[in-house]
Amino acid sequence: MEAVSYRVTGMTCGGCVRAVTNALRAAAPAASVAIDLPKGLVTVGGLDEPGVRRAVEDAGFEFAGRAA
Amino acid sequence: MEAVSYRVTGMTCGGCVRAVTNALRAAAPAASVAIDLPKGLVTVGGLDEPGVRRAVEDAGFEFAGRAA
Repeated sequence: MEAVSYRVTGMTCGGCVRAVTNALRAAAPAASVAIDLPKGLVTVGGLDEPGVRRAVEDAGFEFAGRAA
Repeated sequence: MEAVSYRVTGMTCGGCVRAVTNALRAAAPAASVAIDLPKGLVTVGGLDEPGVRRAVEDAGFEFAGRAA
């Protein structure tokens, strides 16, 4: 599955990045995860969009859809 | 179950607080959760210590035991 970038709001520090990363890996241990904190972008491969949304929201952050 | 305070390191902003809170509530929806960010203290009622540790660590933060 190709990696897709999503906008996620509410991440403001390295702890947030870690929390989102761990939530995604809990949902899909083999997922590729790359997070650009200043841009609020989360790029994920190996987990579909509903799975990404659920993991992000369950972790307490706001999922704002695919990046343009 | 009485609320117990634990030391948790790695929380540095409100997003971290939300992430830890949500992880604890996912583990025990009825748990009481209070977090003192400057002190790094997480006070939880309704979830035992192993459950708190697991939720905190799974969220990407470091569980450092009961507060003195």
